[in-house]
Amino acid sequence: MTAIRIDGKAVAASLRARVADAVADLARDGVVPGLAVVLVGDDPASRVYVGSKKKMTVAAGMRSIDHMLPAETGEAELLALIDRLNRDDDVDGILVQLPLPPQIDASRVILAIDPAKDVDGFHPVNAGRLATGQPALVPCTPVGCVMLAKTVLPSLAGLDAVVVGRSNIVGKPVAQLLLAESATVTVAHSRTRDLPAVCRSADLLVAAVGRPEMIRGDWIKPGAVVIDVGINRIEGEGGTSRLVGDVAYDEAAAHAAAITPVPGGVGPMTIACLLANTVKAARARRGLPEVVLEVAAF
Amino acid sequence: MTAIRIDGKAVAASLRARVADAVADLARDGVVPGLAVVLVGDDPASRVYVGSKKKMTVAAGMRSIDHMLPAETGEAELLALIDRLNRDDDVDGILVQLPLPPQIDASRVILAIDPAKDVDGFHPVNAGRLATGQPALVPCTPVGCVMLAKTVLPSLAGLDAVVVGRSNIVGKPVAQLLLAESATVTVAHSRTRDLPAVCRSADLLVAAVGRPEMIRGDWIKPGAVVIDVGINRIEGEGGTSRLVGDVAYDEAAAHAAAITPVPGGVGPMTIACLLANTVKAARARRGLPEVVLEVAAF
Repeated sequence: MTAIRIDGKAVAASLRARVADAVADLARDGVVPGLAVVLVGDDPASRVYVGSKKKMTVAAGMRSIDHMLPAETGEAELLALIDRLNRDDDVDGILVQLPLPPQIDASRVILAIDPAKDVDGFHPVNAGRLATGQPALVPCTPVGCVMLAKTVLPSLAGLDAVVVGRSNIVGKPVAQLLLAESATVTVAHSRTRDLPAVCRSADLLVAAVGRPEMIRGDWIKPGAVVIDVGINRIEGEGGTSRLVGDVAYDEAAAHAAAITPVPGGVGPMTIACLLANTVKAARARRGLPEVVLEVAAF
Repeated sequence: MTAIRIDGKAVAASLRARVADAVADLARDGVVPGLAVVLVGDDPASRVYVGSKKKMTVAAGMRSIDHMLPAETGEAELLALIDRLNRDDDVDGILVQLPLPPQIDASRVILAIDPAKDVDGFHPVNAGRLATGQPALVPCTPVGCVMLAKTVLPSLAGLDAVVVGRSNIVGKPVAQLLLAESATVTVAHSRTRDLPAVCRSADLLVAAVGRPEMIRGDWIKPGAVVIDVGINRIEGEGGTSRLVGDVAYDEAAAHAAAITPVPGGVGPMTIACLLANTVKAARARRGLPEVVLEVAAF
Protein backbone atom coordinates (compact mmCIF):
# COMPACT_ATOMS: atom_id res chain seq x y z
CA MET A 1 0.00 0.00 0.00
CA THR A 2 1.20 3.50 -0.61
CA ALA A 3 -0.55 6.08 1.46
CA ILE A 4 -2.34 9.14 0.20
CA ARG A 5 -0.18 12.15 0.99
CA ILE A 6 -2.46 14.64 2.73
CA ASP A 7 -1.57 18.01 1.24
CA GLY A 8 -1.68 20.43 4.15
CA LYS A 9 -0.57 23.31 1.95
CA ALA A 10 -3.57 22.88 -0.33
CA VAL A 11 -6.02 22.39 2.52
CA ALA A 12 -4.65 25.44 4.30
CA ALA A 13 -4.93 27.51 1.11
CA SER A 14 -8.54 26.40 0.76
CA LEU A 15 -9.26 27.36 4.36
CA ARG A 16 -7.60 30.76 3.90
CA ALA A 17 -9.78 31.33 0.83
CA ARG A 18 -12.89 30.60 2.94
CA VAL A 19 -11.59 32.98 5.58
CA ALA A 20 -11.10 35.68 2.93
CA ASP A 21 -14.70 35.16 1.77
CA ALA A 22 -15.93 35.49 5.35
CA VAL A 23 -13.85 38.65 5.78
CA ALA A 24 -15.34 40.08 2.57
CA ASP A 25 -18.82 39.37 3.97
CA LEU A 26 -17.95 41.27 7.14
CA ALA A 27 -16.46 44.15 5.12
CA ARG A 28 -19.87 44.67 3.46
CA ASP A 29 -21.10 45.50 6.98
CA GLY A 30 -18.15 47.79 7.56
CA VAL A 31 -16.31 45.33 9.81
CA VAL A 32 -12.63 44.62 9.20
CA PRO A 33 -11.32 42.10 11.77
CA GLY A 34 -8.03 43.02 13.43
CA LEU A 35 -5.41 40.63 14.75
CA ALA A 36 -2.85 41.99 17.20
CA VAL A 37 0.40 40.04 17.35
CA VAL A 38 2.81 40.72 20.18
CA LEU A 39 6.44 39.63 19.90
CA VAL A 40 8.87 40.15 22.75
CA GLY A 41 12.55 39.92 21.82
CA ASP A 42 14.16 38.93 18.56
CA ASP A 43 14.16 35.15 18.41
CA PRO A 44 14.76 34.55 14.67
CA ALA A 45 12.25 31.68 14.35
CA SER A 46 9.56 33.71 16.12
CA ARG A 47 10.27 36.68 13.83
CA VAL A 48 9.81 34.53 10.74
CA TYR A 49 6.61 33.07 12.15
CA VAL A 50 5.18 36.47 13.11
CA GLY A 51 6.08 37.74 9.64
CA SER A 52 4.09 34.92 8.01
CA LYS A 53 1.11 35.55 10.26
CA LYS A 54 1.15 39.24 9.36
CA LYS A 55 1.38 38.57 5.63
CA MET A 56 -1.45 36.05 5.62
CA THR A 57 -3.65 38.18 7.87
CA VAL A 58 -3.37 41.04 5.38
CA ALA A 59 -3.80 38.70 2.40
CA ALA A 60 -7.10 37.52 3.92
CA GLY A 61 -8.32 41.12 4.04
CA MET A 62 -7.87 41.67 7.77
CA ARG A 63 -5.89 44.24 9.71
CA SER A 64 -2.62 43.15 11.29
CA ILE A 65 -1.50 45.11 14.32
CA ASP A 66 2.09 44.39 15.36
CA HIS A 67 3.70 45.09 18.67
CA MET A 68 7.40 44.31 18.59
CA LEU A 69 8.83 44.77 22.08
CA PRO A 70 12.47 44.60 23.15
CA ALA A 71 13.77 41.41 24.81
CA GLU A 72 14.12 43.17 28.16
CA THR A 73 10.43 44.17 28.35
CA GLY A 74 9.04 43.60 31.84
CA GLU A 75 5.96 41.58 32.66
CA ALA A 76 4.05 44.62 33.93
CA GLU A 77 4.66 46.45 30.68
CA LEU A 78 3.43 43.48 28.63
CA LEU A 79 0.36 43.10 30.84
CA ALA A 80 -0.40 46.81 30.40
CA LEU A 81 -0.24 46.38 26.61
CA ILE A 82 -2.58 43.39 26.77
CA ASP A 83 -4.99 45.41 28.87
CA ARG A 84 -5.02 48.12 26.19
CA LEU A 85 -5.56 45.54 23.44
CA ASN A 86 -8.37 43.92 25.44
CA ARG A 87 -10.14 47.28 25.61
CA ASP A 88 -9.37 48.30 22.00
CA ASP A 89 -12.53 47.72 20.01
CA ASP A 90 -10.56 47.49 16.75
CA VAL A 91 -8.73 44.42 18.03
CA ASP A 92 -10.59 41.11 17.60
CA GLY A 93 -7.76 38.71 18.25
CA ILE A 94 -4.68 38.91 20.46
CA LEU A 95 -1.76 36.58 19.96
CA VAL A 96 1.32 36.70 22.15
CA GLN A 97 4.11 34.83 20.41
CA LEU A 98 5.66 32.16 22.64
CA PRO A 99 8.21 31.50 24.04
CA LEU A 100 8.52 34.64 26.17
CA PRO A 101 11.77 35.79 27.78
CA PRO A 102 12.48 34.34 31.25
CA GLN A 103 11.50 37.47 33.19
CA ILE A 104 7.89 37.07 31.99
CA ASP A 105 5.49 34.42 33.32
CA ALA A 106 3.71 33.11 30.23
CA SER A 107 0.78 31.64 32.16
CA ARG A 108 0.06 35.03 33.76
CA VAL A 109 0.15 36.65 30.33
CA ILE A 110 -2.24 34.07 28.86
CA LEU A 111 -4.63 34.62 31.79
CA ALA A 112 -4.62 38.37 31.10
CA ILE A 113 -5.94 38.01 27.55
CA ASP A 114 -9.69 38.52 27.19
CA PRO A 115 -10.98 34.98 26.45
CA ALA A 116 -13.17 36.48 23.70
CA LYS A 117 -10.00 37.67 21.91
CA ASP A 118 -7.86 34.63 22.77
CA VAL A 119 -7.33 33.38 19.20
CA ASP A 120 -4.62 30.96 20.35
CA GLY A 121 -7.22 29.26 22.57
CA PHE A 122 -4.75 28.91 25.45
CA HIS A 123 -6.80 30.73 28.12
CA PRO A 124 -8.21 28.34 30.78
CA VAL A 125 -11.72 29.62 30.01
CA ASN A 126 -11.38 28.44 26.42
CA ALA A 127 -9.74 25.17 27.52
CA GLY A 128 -12.66 24.65 29.91
CA ARG A 129 -15.27 25.50 27.32
CA LEU A 130 -13.65 23.02 24.94
CA ALA A 131 -13.48 20.39 27.70
CA THR A 132 -17.18 20.84 28.51
CA GLY A 133 -18.46 21.04 24.94
CA GLN A 134 -19.30 24.74 24.93
CA PRO A 135 -18.50 27.21 22.13
CA ALA A 136 -14.81 28.06 22.46
CA LEU A 137 -11.82 29.49 20.68
CA VAL A 138 -9.84 26.26 20.18
CA PRO A 139 -6.05 26.04 19.77
CA CYS A 140 -5.09 26.28 16.10
CA THR A 141 -2.85 23.26 15.55
CA PRO A 142 -5.35 20.75 17.05
CA VAL A 143 -8.13 22.17 14.87
CA GLY A 144 -5.84 21.83 11.87
CA CYS A 145 -5.14 18.18 12.73
CA VAL A 146 -8.83 17.32 12.83
CA MET A 147 -9.53 19.21 9.59
CA LEU A 148 -6.77 17.26 7.82
CA ALA A 149 -8.09 13.93 9.15
CA LYS A 150 -11.54 14.83 7.90
CA THR A 151 -10.27 15.41 4.36
CA VAL A 152 -9.81 11.63 4.10
CA LEU A 153 -12.28 10.28 6.68
CA PRO A 154 -15.95 11.06 6.16
CA SER A 155 -16.68 10.60 9.87
CA LEU A 156 -14.48 10.03 12.90
CA ALA A 157 -17.35 8.54 14.95
CA GLY A 158 -16.47 5.18 16.46
CA LEU A 159 -12.90 5.22 15.15
CA ASP A 160 -10.11 4.22 17.52
CA ALA A 161 -8.02 7.38 17.72
CA VAL A 162 -4.68 7.51 19.49
CA VAL A 163 -3.00 10.79 20.38
CA VAL A 164 0.67 10.48 21.28
CA GLY A 165 1.62 13.41 23.50
CA ARG A 166 -0.30 15.19 26.25
CA SER A 167 0.73 18.84 25.92
CA ASN A 168 -1.74 21.61 26.67
CA ILE A 169 -1.27 23.12 23.23
CA VAL A 170 -1.65 20.01 21.07
CA GLY A 171 -2.17 16.59 22.67
CA LYS A 172 -4.89 17.39 25.18
CA PRO A 173 -6.99 19.71 23.00
CA VAL A 174 -6.77 17.40 19.99
CA ALA A 175 -8.03 14.58 22.24
CA GLN A 176 -10.98 16.76 23.26
CA LEU A 177 -11.79 17.53 19.62
CA LEU A 178 -11.62 13.87 18.61
CA LEU A 179 -13.87 12.95 21.52
CA ALA A 180 -16.35 15.59 20.38
CA GLU A 181 -16.24 13.89 16.96
CA SER A 182 -17.24 10.66 18.77
CA ALA A 183 -13.98 8.82 18.26
CA THR A 184 -12.86 6.44 21.00
CA VAL A 185 -9.83 8.40 22.15
CA THR A 186 -6.64 7.16 23.80
CA VAL A 187 -3.98 9.58 25.01
CA ALA A 188 -0.54 7.97 25.14
CA HIS A 189 2.69 9.59 26.31
CA SER A 190 6.19 9.02 27.65
CA ARG A 191 4.90 6.84 30.51
CA THR A 192 2.86 4.57 28.23
CA ARG A 193 4.14 1.02 28.67
CA ASP A 194 3.87 -0.41 25.17
CA LEU A 195 3.65 2.57 22.85
CA PRO A 196 4.09 0.57 19.60
CA ALA A 197 1.15 -1.66 20.55
CA VAL A 198 -1.03 1.32 21.50
CA CYS A 199 -0.20 3.05 18.20
CA ARG A 200 -0.95 -0.17 16.32
CA SER A 201 -4.52 -0.08 17.66
CA ALA A 202 -5.18 3.30 16.02
CA ASP A 203 -7.43 3.86 13.04
CA LEU A 204 -6.39 7.50 13.40
CA LEU A 205 -2.99 8.30 14.87
CA VAL A 206 -1.99 11.83 15.87
CA ALA A 207 1.68 12.19 16.76
CA ALA A 208 2.64 15.24 18.82
CA VAL A 209 5.74 14.36 20.79
CA GLY A 210 8.54 16.37 19.19
CA ARG A 211 10.91 13.43 18.73
CA PRO A 212 12.24 12.94 15.20
CA GLU A 213 10.88 9.85 13.44
CA MET A 214 10.13 8.13 16.75
CA ILE A 215 7.04 6.38 15.36
CA ARG A 216 8.10 3.61 13.04
CA GLY A 217 6.37 1.92 10.14
CA ASP A 218 5.47 -1.25 12.03
CA TRP A 219 3.66 0.84 14.67
CA ILE A 220 1.06 1.76 12.05
CA LYS A 221 -2.10 -0.30 11.67
CA PRO A 222 -2.62 -1.15 7.98
CA GLY A 223 -5.02 1.39 6.52
CA ALA A 224 -4.68 3.91 9.34
CA VAL A 225 -4.72 7.67 8.89
CA VAL A 226 -1.62 9.36 10.34
CA ILE A 227 -1.44 13.03 11.31
CA ASP A 228 2.10 14.10 12.17
CA VAL A 229 2.36 17.29 14.23
CA GLY A 230 6.09 17.06 14.87
CA ILE A 231 8.48 19.44 13.15
CA ASN A 232 12.04 18.43 14.04
CA ARG A 233 15.22 19.68 12.42
CA ILE A 234 17.89 17.02 12.05
CA GLU A 235 21.45 17.43 10.88
CA GLY A 236 22.41 15.85 7.59
CA GLU A 237 25.77 15.40 5.91
CA GLY A 238 28.09 18.31 5.14
CA GLY A 239 26.43 20.81 7.49
CA THR A 240 23.01 20.46 5.89
CA SER A 241 19.82 19.93 7.82
CA ARG A 242 16.26 18.91 7.05
CA LEU A 243 12.87 18.84 8.72
CA VAL A 244 11.28 15.58 9.74
CA GLY A 245 8.14 14.71 11.69
CA ASP A 246 7.56 12.49 14.71
CA VAL A 247 6.71 9.68 12.29
CA ALA A 248 9.19 7.90 10.00
CA TYR A 249 7.34 8.98 6.87
CA ASP A 250 8.48 6.49 4.24
CA GLU A 251 8.07 3.49 6.53
CA ALA A 252 4.67 4.65 7.76
CA ALA A 253 3.44 5.49 4.27
CA ALA A 254 3.91 1.81 3.38
CA HIS A 255 1.23 0.86 5.94
CA ALA A 256 -1.06 3.87 6.27
CA ALA A 257 -4.00 4.75 4.06
CA ALA A 258 -3.16 8.43 4.35
CA ILE A 259 -0.47 10.48 6.06
CA THR A 260 0.58 14.09 6.42
CA PRO A 261 4.10 14.98 5.29
CA VAL A 262 6.57 17.18 7.17
CA PRO A 263 6.91 19.88 6.04
CA GLY A 264 3.68 20.63 4.18
CA GLY A 265 1.24 18.81 6.43
CA VAL A 266 -0.03 20.16 9.75
CA GLY A 267 2.34 23.14 9.72
CA PRO A 268 0.50 25.28 7.14
CA MET A 269 -2.82 24.64 8.89
CA THR A 270 -1.83 26.47 12.07
CA ILE A 271 -1.81 30.00 10.64
CA ALA A 272 -4.90 29.29 8.52
CA CYS A 273 -6.76 28.20 11.67
CA LEU A 274 -5.49 31.31 13.47
CA LEU A 275 -7.08 33.45 10.75
CA ALA A 276 -10.28 31.43 11.05
CA ASN A 277 -10.28 31.97 14.84
CA THR A 278 -9.88 35.71 14.28
CA VAL A 279 -12.98 35.79 12.07
CA LYS A 280 -14.81 33.65 14.62
CA ALA A 281 -13.85 36.05 17.44
CA ALA A 282 -14.78 39.10 15.35
CA ARG A 283 -18.24 37.68 14.64
CA ALA A 284 -18.85 36.43 18.20
CA ARG A 285 -17.84 39.78 19.72
CA ARG A 286 -20.48 41.48 17.53
CA GLY A 287 -23.16 38.89 18.30
CA LEU A 288 -23.12 37.60 14.71
CA PRO A 289 -23.86 33.92 14.10
CA GLU A 290 -20.87 31.67 13.58
CA VAL A 291 -19.96 30.78 9.99
CA VAL A 292 -18.60 27.32 9.29
CA LEU A 293 -15.11 27.68 7.88
CA GLU A 294 -14.26 24.02 8.14
CA VAL A 295 -12.79 22.44 5.04
CA ALA A 296 -15.10 19.77 3.68
CA ALA A 297 -13.91 16.24 2.92
CA PHE A 298 -12.23 16.04 -0.47
CA MET B 1 -10.05 -15.04 41.82
CA THR B 2 -12.31 -13.11 44.12
CA ALA B 3 -11.78 -9.40 44.00
CA ILE B 4 -11.01 -7.15 46.92
CA ARG B 5 -14.15 -5.17 47.70
CA ILE B 6 -13.06 -1.54 47.88
CA ASP B 7 -14.88 -0.11 50.87
CA GLY B 8 -15.93 3.38 49.81
CA LYS B 9 -17.71 3.98 53.10
CA ALA B 10 -14.51 3.41 55.07
CA VAL B 11 -12.36 5.46 52.69
CA ALA B 12 -14.90 8.30 52.76
CA ALA B 13 -14.99 8.20 56.57
CA SER B 14 -11.20 8.40 56.64
CA LEU B 15 -11.25 11.38 54.26
CA ARG B 16 -13.91 13.13 56.34
CA ALA B 17 -11.73 12.63 59.41
CA ARG B 18 -8.82 14.31 57.61
CA VAL B 19 -11.12 17.12 56.57
CA ALA B 20 -12.22 17.53 60.21
CA ASP B 21 -8.55 17.74 61.26
CA ALA B 22 -7.90 20.39 58.61
CA VAL B 23 -10.97 22.31 59.78
CA ALA B 24 -9.72 22.14 63.37
CA ASP B 25 -6.39 23.58 62.18
CA LEU B 26 -8.19 26.47 60.52
CA ALA B 27 -10.32 27.03 63.62
CA ARG B 28 -7.16 27.69 65.64
CA ASP B 29 -6.66 30.69 63.32
CA GLY B 30 -10.27 31.72 63.78
CA VAL B 31 -11.39 30.46 60.36
CA VAL B 32 -14.54 28.32 60.08
CA PRO B 33 -15.18 27.36 56.44
CA GLY B 34 -18.74 27.86 55.24
CA LEU B 35 -20.51 25.85 52.55
CA ALA B 36 -23.63 27.36 50.99
CA VAL B 37 -26.02 24.84 49.46
CA VAL B 38 -28.81 26.09 47.21
CA LEU B 39 -31.79 23.85 46.48
CA VAL B 40 -34.55 24.98 44.13
CA GLY B 41 -37.78 22.99 44.37
CA ASP B 42 -38.59 19.90 46.35
CA ASP B 43 -37.27 16.93 44.41
CA PRO B 44 -37.22 14.22 47.11
CA ALA B 45 -33.86 12.73 46.06
CA SER B 46 -32.25 16.18 46.01
CA ARG B 47 -33.68 16.92 49.47
CA VAL B 48 -32.17 13.75 50.89
CA TYR B 49 -28.83 14.52 49.28
CA VAL B 50 -28.79 18.13 50.49
CA GLY B 51 -29.68 16.89 53.98
CA SER B 52 -26.68 14.53 53.98
CA LYS B 53 -24.37 17.28 52.79
CA LYS B 54 -25.56 19.57 55.55
CA LYS B 55 -25.15 16.93 58.26
CA MET B 56 -21.64 15.98 57.16
CA THR B 57 -20.56 19.61 56.72
CA VAL B 58 -21.54 20.32 60.31
CA ALA B 59 -20.00 17.03 61.53
CA ALA B 60 -16.68 18.11 59.98
CA GLY B 61 -16.81 21.34 61.99
CA MET B 62 -17.82 23.66 59.16
CA ARG B 63 -20.75 25.99 58.78
CA SER B 64 -23.61 24.90 56.50
CA ILE B 65 -25.65 27.69 54.94
CA ASP B 66 -28.85 26.46 53.31
CA HIS B 67 -30.97 28.28 50.78
CA MET B 68 -34.16 26.35 50.02
CA LEU B 69 -36.02 28.12 47.23
CA PRO B 70 -39.49 27.32 45.87
CA ALA B 71 -39.76 25.36 42.60
CA GLU B 72 -41.08 28.45 40.77
CA THR B 73 -37.98 30.56 41.55
CA GLY B 74 -36.87 32.54 38.50
CA GLU B 75 -33.39 32.52 37.02
CA ALA B 76 -32.78 36.19 37.85
CA GLU B 77 -33.64 35.56 41.49
CA LEU B 78 -31.25 32.62 41.68
CA LEU B 79 -28.49 34.61 39.95
CA ALA B 80 -29.01 37.44 42.45
CA LEU B 81 -28.61 34.98 45.33
CA ILE B 82 -25.41 33.60 43.80
CA ASP B 83 -24.09 37.12 43.43
CA ARG B 84 -24.70 37.71 47.15
CA LEU B 85 -23.01 34.42 48.06
CA ASN B 86 -20.04 35.27 45.81
CA ARG B 87 -19.57 38.53 47.72
CA ASP B 88 -20.24 37.05 51.18
CA ASP B 89 -16.87 36.61 52.85
CA ASP B 90 -18.26 33.95 55.19
CA VAL B 91 -19.07 31.69 52.26
CA ASP B 92 -16.16 29.58 51.00
CA GLY B 93 -18.05 27.13 48.86
CA ILE B 94 -21.23 27.44 46.79
CA LEU B 95 -23.10 24.38 45.61
CA VAL B 96 -26.26 24.63 43.54
CA GLN B 97 -28.01 21.27 43.66
CA LEU B 98 -28.78 19.93 40.17
CA PRO B 99 -31.09 19.34 38.39
CA LEU B 100 -32.70 22.78 38.33
CA PRO B 101 -36.30 23.41 37.27
CA PRO B 102 -36.84 23.98 33.51
CA GLN B 103 -37.20 27.78 33.74
CA ILE B 104 -33.57 28.05 34.90
CA ASP B 105 -30.57 27.61 32.58
CA ALA B 106 -28.13 25.50 34.62
CA SER B 107 -25.10 26.47 32.51
CA ARG B 108 -25.76 30.17 33.13
CA VAL B 109 -26.04 29.49 36.87
CA ILE B 110 -22.75 27.54 36.90
CA LEU B 111 -21.03 30.38 35.04
CA ALA B 112 -22.26 32.86 37.67
CA ILE B 113 -20.53 31.10 40.56
CA ASP B 114 -17.16 32.58 41.54
CA PRO B 115 -14.66 29.94 40.33
CA ALA B 116 -12.83 30.31 43.66
CA LYS B 117 -15.99 29.13 45.47
CA ASP B 118 -17.05 26.55 42.86
CA VAL B 119 -16.72 23.45 45.08
CA ASP B 120 -18.55 21.32 42.50
CA GLY B 121 -15.78 22.15 40.00
CA PHE B 122 -18.28 22.62 37.17
CA HIS B 123 -17.28 26.17 36.16
CA PRO B 124 -15.43 26.29 32.80
CA VAL B 125 -12.51 28.05 34.51
CA ASN B 126 -12.04 25.07 36.80
CA ALA B 127 -12.55 22.62 33.93
CA GLY B 128 -9.91 24.55 31.97
CA ARG B 129 -7.48 24.64 34.87
CA LEU B 130 -7.90 20.90 35.29
CA ALA B 131 -7.44 20.35 31.54
CA THR B 132 -4.23 22.42 31.51
CA GLY B 133 -2.71 21.04 34.71
CA GLN B 134 -3.21 24.14 36.84
CA PRO B 135 -4.51 24.19 40.43
CA ALA B 136 -8.28 23.77 40.24
CA LEU B 137 -11.37 22.85 42.18
CA VAL B 138 -12.05 19.44 40.61
CA PRO B 139 -15.48 17.74 40.42
CA CYS B 140 -16.05 15.58 43.50
CA THR B 141 -17.03 12.21 42.04
CA PRO B 142 -14.01 11.98 39.69
CA VAL B 143 -11.66 12.82 42.57
CA GLY B 144 -13.36 10.12 44.63
CA CYS B 145 -12.86 7.57 41.83
CA VAL B 146 -9.13 8.25 41.67
CA MET B 147 -8.79 8.14 45.46
CA LEU B 148 -10.49 4.74 45.56
CA ALA B 149 -8.27 3.40 42.76
CA LYS B 150 -5.22 4.58 44.67
CA THR B 151 -6.21 2.63 47.76
CA VAL B 152 -5.32 -0.55 45.87
CA LEU B 153 -2.84 0.68 43.24
CA PRO B 154 0.37 2.25 44.52
CA SER B 155 0.82 4.18 41.26
CA LEU B 156 -1.35 4.68 38.21
CA ALA B 157 1.60 5.66 35.99
CA GLY B 158 1.76 3.63 32.80
CA LEU B 159 -1.44 1.72 33.53
CA ASP B 160 -3.95 1.29 30.74
CA ALA B 161 -7.01 3.09 32.07
CA VAL B 162 -10.36 3.02 30.31
CA VAL B 163 -13.14 5.43 31.20
CA VAL B 164 -16.57 4.43 29.90
CA GLY B 165 -18.68 7.57 29.59
CA ARG B 166 -17.81 11.09 28.48
CA SER B 167 -19.98 13.32 30.64
CA ASN B 168 -18.71 16.70 31.80
CA ILE B 169 -19.29 15.79 35.43
CA VAL B 170 -17.64 12.36 35.56
CA GLY B 171 -16.16 10.82 32.40
CA LYS B 172 -14.16 13.75 31.05
CA PRO B 173 -12.76 15.03 34.36
CA VAL B 174 -11.85 11.53 35.56
CA ALA B 175 -9.96 11.06 32.28
CA GLN B 176 -8.05 14.29 32.95
CA LEU B 177 -7.17 13.17 36.47
CA LEU B 178 -5.98 9.76 35.28
CA LEU B 179 -3.85 11.43 32.60
CA ALA B 180 -2.34 13.67 35.26
CA GLU B 181 -1.49 10.47 37.15
CA SER B 182 0.37 9.35 33.98
CA ALA B 183 -1.99 6.53 33.06
CA THR B 184 -2.53 5.83 29.36
CA VAL B 185 -6.15 6.93 29.16
CA THR B 186 -8.87 5.80 26.76
CA VAL B 187 -12.32 7.40 26.81
CA ALA B 188 -14.99 5.06 25.45
CA HIS B 189 -18.68 5.83 25.03
CA SER B 190 -21.88 4.93 23.23
CA ARG B 191 -20.23 5.29 19.80
CA THR B 192 -17.32 3.00 20.65
CA ARG B 193 -17.36 0.10 18.21
CA ASP B 194 -16.22 -2.82 20.35
CA LEU B 195 -16.80 -1.75 23.92
CA PRO B 196 -16.18 -5.21 25.46
CA ALA B 197 -12.75 -5.38 23.78
CA VAL B 198 -11.85 -1.84 24.86
CA CYS B 199 -12.87 -2.63 28.46
CA ARG B 200 -10.87 -5.85 28.33
CA SER B 201 -7.71 -3.82 27.65
CA ALA B 202 -8.08 -1.92 30.93
CA ASP B 203 -5.85 -2.36 33.95
CA LEU B 204 -8.10 0.25 35.54
CA LEU B 205 -11.72 0.49 34.40
CA VAL B 206 -13.96 3.40 35.40
CA ALA B 207 -17.62 2.90 34.48
CA ALA B 208 -19.77 6.03 34.34
CA VAL B 209 -22.57 5.38 31.91
CA GLY B 210 -25.71 5.06 34.03
CA ARG B 211 -26.86 1.76 32.53
CA PRO B 212 -27.56 -1.01 35.04
CA GLU B 213 -25.03 -3.86 34.94
CA MET B 214 -24.09 -3.11 31.34
CA ILE B 215 -20.47 -4.12 31.86
CA ARG B 216 -20.26 -7.90 32.15
CA GLY B 217 -17.74 -10.16 33.81
CA ASP B 218 -16.02 -11.24 30.60
CA TRP B 219 -15.34 -7.57 29.75
CA ILE B 220 -12.93 -7.42 32.70
CA LYS B 221 -9.24 -8.11 32.23
CA PRO B 222 -8.06 -10.61 34.86
CA GLY B 223 -6.53 -8.66 37.71
CA ALA B 224 -8.03 -5.30 36.74
CA VAL B 225 -9.25 -2.68 39.20
CA VAL B 226 -12.85 -1.66 38.58
CA ILE B 227 -14.39 1.62 39.78
CA ASP B 228 -18.16 1.68 39.28
CA VAL B 229 -19.71 5.16 39.30
CA GLY B 230 -23.20 4.05 38.24
CA ILE B 231 -26.06 4.09 40.73
CA ASN B 232 -29.11 2.60 39.04
CA ARG B 233 -32.34 1.56 40.75
CA ILE B 234 -33.88 -1.58 39.30
CA GLU B 235 -37.21 -3.12 40.12
CA GLY B 236 -37.21 -6.46 41.84
CA GLU B 237 -40.02 -8.89 42.62
CA GLY B 238 -43.08 -7.91 44.60
CA GLY B 239 -42.65 -4.15 44.24
CA THR B 240 -39.17 -4.13 45.74
CA SER B 241 -36.21 -2.39 44.19
CA ARG B 242 -32.46 -2.37 44.64
CA LEU B 243 -29.46 -0.32 43.58
CA VAL B 244 -26.95 -1.69 41.11
CA GLY B 245 -23.96 -0.20 39.37
CA ASP B 246 -22.97 -0.02 35.71
CA VAL B 247 -20.96 -3.20 36.26
CA ALA B 248 -22.42 -6.66 36.91
CA TYR B 249 -20.71 -6.92 40.30
CA ASP B 250 -20.65 -10.67 40.98
CA GLU B 251 -19.48 -11.53 37.47
CA ALA B 252 -16.83 -8.81 37.44
CA ALA B 253 -15.60 -9.69 40.94
CA ALA B 254 -14.68 -13.13 39.60
CA HIS B 255 -12.14 -11.53 37.25
CA ALA B 256 -11.06 -8.26 38.87
CA ALA B 257 -8.37 -7.81 41.50
CA ALA B 258 -10.46 -5.13 43.20
CA ILE B 259 -13.86 -3.56 42.61
CA THR B 260 -16.11 -0.95 44.21
CA PRO B 261 -19.58 -2.14 45.25
CA VAL B 262 -22.85 -0.28 44.63
CA PRO B 263 -23.97 1.05 47.03
CA GLY B 264 -21.01 1.71 49.31
CA GLY B 265 -18.34 2.39 46.70
CA VAL B 266 -17.97 5.69 44.83
CA GLY B 267 -21.20 7.13 46.25
CA PRO B 268 -19.97 7.95 49.75
CA MET B 269 -16.83 9.58 48.32
CA THR B 270 -18.71 12.39 46.60
CA ILE B 271 -19.78 14.27 49.72
CA ALA B 272 -16.43 13.62 51.41
CA CYS B 273 -14.66 15.17 48.40
CA LEU B 274 -17.10 18.09 48.49
CA LEU B 275 -16.06 18.77 52.09
CA ALA B 276 -12.40 18.49 51.05
CA ASN B 277 -13.01 21.00 48.24
CA THR B 278 -14.62 23.40 50.71
CA VAL B 279 -11.50 23.31 52.90
CA LYS B 280 -9.34 23.72 49.80
CA ALA B 281 -11.36 26.75 48.70
CA ALA B 282 -11.32 28.25 52.19
CA ARG B 283 -7.52 27.98 52.36
CA ALA B 284 -6.89 29.17 48.80
CA ARG B 285 -9.15 32.22 49.27
CA ARG B 286 -7.03 33.21 52.27
CA GLY B 287 -3.73 32.58 50.49
CA LEU B 288 -2.94 29.62 52.76
CA PRO B 289 -0.91 26.71 51.32
CA GLU B 290 -2.89 23.70 50.21
CA VAL B 291 -3.04 20.73 52.59
CA VAL B 292 -3.04 17.24 51.12
CA LEU B 293 -6.27 15.54 52.13
CA GLU B 294 -5.86 12.61 49.79
CA VAL B 295 -6.34 9.20 51.34
CA ALA B 296 -3.11 7.22 51.26
CA ALA B 297 -2.92 3.71 49.81
CA PHE B 298 -4.06 1.15 52.35
